[in-house]
Amino acid sequence: MKARITVTLKTGVLDPQGKAIEHALSALGFSGVGGVRQGKFIEVELAEKDEGKARAAVSSMCEKLLANTVIENYAIDLVD
Amino acid sequence: MKARITVTLKTGVLDPQGKAIEHALSALGFSGVGGVRQGKFIEVELAEKDEGKARAAVSSMCEKLLANTVIENYAIDLVD
Repeated sequence: MKARITVTLKTGVLDPQGKAIEHALSALGFSGVGGVRQGKFIEVELAEKDEGKARAAVSSMCEKLLANTVIENYAIDLVD
Repeated sequence: MKARITVTLKTGVLDPQGKAIEHALSALGFSGVGGVRQGKFIEVELAEKDEGKARAAVSSMCEKLLANTVIENYAIDLVD
């Protein structure tokens, strides 16, 4: 089973990297682009076959290592 | 319209950040974890309402700025 985790900054937390991308996009001539936010994407291969247990394990990984829950949110997507 | 872009390293390209996460997870006691790959997640707010045009614009952004297509793949997900 594969877990796809996206870690994003909470709303209200400043995102200078996102702002830099936004400026670069408008400098390249892309108009109508706003609210750019950059986050992390992590893909993990799990030996666990049970979806509930896999989700619990990945949540625990996020809480302990992958996300800083003070300033970041995480979303977990399990595939096959 | 919102575009969610994930930029991941192509298979075969070494991912030292992913390896570091994998080692840290097993050091924390998570077993049965392998094949960790780290990528980027970018969320962009678009003024464009037409899905086809929005997808074409975002593809162009990825090719020109957001992804290094020599070593990275990108996936685009458009929402509402």
